[in-house]
This record gives sequence, structure tokens and C-alpha cells, in this order.
Amino acid sequence: MDKDDIKEIWKVPEPTLRRLPWYLAFVKLLKGKGETFVSSTQIAKEINVDASQVAKDLSFVNISGKTRVGYEIDTLVEVLEQFLGFTSQHKAFIFGVGSLGASLLQDSGLNQYGLDIVAGFDIKDELAGSSINGIPVFHLKDFREKQKEYGATIGIITVPVEKAQEVTEEIIEGGIKALWNFTPFRIRVPEHIVVQNTSMYAHLAVMFNRLNSMNH
Amino acid sequence: MDKDDIKEIWKVPEPTLRRLPWYLAFVKLLKGKGETFVSSTQIAKEINVDASQVAKDLSFVNISGKTRVGYEIDTLVEVLEQFLGFTSQHKAFIFGVGSLGASLLQDSGLNQYGLDIVAGFDIKDELAGSSINGIPVFHLKDFREKQKEYGATIGIITVPVEKAQEVTEEIIEGGIKALWNFTPFRIRVPEHIVVQNTSMYAHLAVMFNRLNSMNH
Repeated sequence: MDKDDIKEIWKVPEPTLRRLPWYLAFVKLLKGKGETFVSSTQIAKEINVDASQVAKDLSFVNISGKTRVGYEIDTLVEVLEQFLGFTSQHKAFIFGVGSLGASLLQDSGLNQYGLDIVAGFDIKDELAGSSINGIPVFHLKDFREKQKEYGATIGIITVPVEKAQEVTEEIIEGGIKALWNFTPFRIRVPEHIVVQNTSMYAHLAVMFNRLNSMNH
Repeated sequence: MDKDDIKEIWKVPEPTLRRLPWYLAFVKLLKGKGETFVSSTQIAKEINVDASQVAKDLSFVNISGKTRVGYEIDTLVEVLEQFLGFTSQHKAFIFGVGSLGASLLQDSGLNQYGLDIVAGFDIKDELAGSSINGIPVFHLKDFREKQKEYGATIGIITVPVEKAQEVTEEIIEGGIKALWNFTPFRIRVPEHIVVQNTSMYAHLAVMFNRLNSMNH
């Protein structure tokens, strides 16, 4: 990868990265229907985003549309999937095999999007040595050793909220580069560590509030 | 509920609703440590948000701090949980008992945040009549009838992306008021329907992109 490519990746804004999977899902639908070309106007109309925004978002991806006909669907799907990282496998560990952690281990759908969950860790002795959906669960004290073996880059945090910061630090010391935080705790990390927060509870709070407003 | 209260609820911006659960998680931690008061400055420092923002966010909640000592922790936890809707039970149906749907049925943690998943629906005949984590799974064709019985207000959408819009329309016609959409498809709904999108794949895309940028 040369310097210009690096600059290109750095430049992609988070809102763009969050919209591109919407475009991909829609374009894959069209592909399933046997369509061969799609315009940014079509995508814009479907996703309810400005057409110029769609064109701008797609300009980060290495693909160019043709005047009048738009983007070739097969190529767009392929290029988007690759650009979004869904075609490479990223090894991940799950920390905390409670209710949510165990349910993520069950969800093989994530695998199709490039997330390869290779092991789970917990502090409960009775979980160590078990497996869920074919994925082994180890005691947290064995994490450093297993990390040498697996070389995971992503840590999924599903521990109880009061353990979130402590486990975060342990994970980072063990060499994990990116954290997917499902706890409602705002974890603190060094600058070179990537954090993505998915707070299901925050989404619930927004939904409940809007629902109550609608009903009155 | 009188008109002023309604106005109050409507006024709460989404970013505030997304930040309040972070504050709640932190304040509950302090409570667990035996603390009795917390200031907005303390919360601000921990969550990495401006202190004036914290005070503004908390102004939507019916609680007032005391000069110098701040907010009483017990009251703040109670008031926040109630305000965010975590203390009432909201009946929900899951549509699509595939990998993700089944894993959400397994996750009893959501129940503690006011989401009461009472049934799942799928088009697969072999799933109808089964149950996961004690929650019954029915055939989608029985949805209208079961809705009369249960009166769910929330529909969780975990169907394959190509079915998302079709199922959305069926759910709304059946009287569901709010949709929690886990598919990467941008569903279209009438104005009076609440939609909350939780796209795990979009979060993955952001994480993969940042991770690649860090490594080069």
C-alpha cells in the first residue's frame, strides 16, 4: 500500500462509512433481481439521502460510474464489500461470555461480514473448557497465552459494566488493536487503539422515548 | 400526562438520549462503590463530555443538583432509569428467528432494560411451535392473531435483508408502533412509526477501516 492509498483510507469520514453498508445492501438486492446497472440517483431515492451525497460517498471507493447508465452492479458490490473490509477475515476474541457474549458467539451472521470470532474468555471457572457454536471458551487468565496462538486483532467487550475498564486495559496490554464495546460504559483507551461503541441500551432509550411521545 | 410534559419529552434531542445511558452506567458504578453524591463535572470528566453539556442533558430529566455537592446518586439512578424507560416493560416481538434473531432471544440482558421479548416469528415451518430461552416461536402467518393476544408495541426486525421492507409493512399493518431494525436495509415507514436502526455491519465497517488505517 503506497502513501496515497493510506491517505485515502484516513480520509473516509465515519458518516460515509456508516452509509456505505446501506448502499451495499440495496445494490445486492438489485443484483438478486438481475439488474446490471444502478445510478446514484436510484440509490439516493431508495436510501433517502441526497444524490450528490451518494456520489461523494462512492468517490471514496475505487469505482467510477458511466454517464447515463451509472455503476455496474457486479463491480460495485465487489468493490464495496472489499472496501468495507467484509471480504477479509478479522480475528476476534469475545470478553465476557454472559448473556450477550454467548448470544454473539451464536450469531454466525457476523462471520459473513468479515468478523471471525475465534474464542471467548470469561472469569467463570465453569465456562473454561466449554464451547459455544463450535467456538472455544477459555478462562480470562489464559488470554495472553491464547493471544500468542491466535493473534486476534479485535476484542469484543461484553463483560459487566463494572469490569469494562479493567478488562479493556488487560486486552490492550495483550496486544489487541481494536475494541468493539457493547457495554454502556465509556471505556478509556490510548490514542492508537480503535474503539467502536454499540450501545444497544442507548438505542432502546431513544426508541422508548419516541414511542412514549407518539402515544400521548 | 399534561401538555407541558409532552412538550418536554418531544424536546429531548437524540444525542442527549444517547448520552444519558452513559451517565447512568457511571453513576450506578459510583453507587456500587458506596458514593452518595456526584457532580456534573465528575460525570463530564469520566465520560469525556463538556460539563455544561452534562448539566444541559440532565436538565431534561426531572432532577436538580445541590450547589457544591451535586446530584444525590440514589435519586439520579432512579430518575434516569425511569426517564429512559428502563423501568417499564415494553412488549416486543422478534421477526426472523435466524442466527441474529435467535441470539437476541437468548440475551436476557435486554429484559433488565425494559425490553420484554414475548414471542418470535419466522416463515420456517419447522421453527413454529418451538421456543428459545422460554420464549415461544410462531409462524409469521399467525402474527395478527398473536398480536391481538399479546399487544406488543415493538417489532425487532432480524429477517434477511430482501424481506425487510415486506415484513416491515406487515408488522405496521398489524399495529406495531416502533421498529428496531437490525438489517442493513433502510426500511421505509409512515411518519407516525418510530424506527431505530442498529446496524452491526456499519459498526464493523467503521472498525475495520480504522484498524486498517492504524496498521499502515
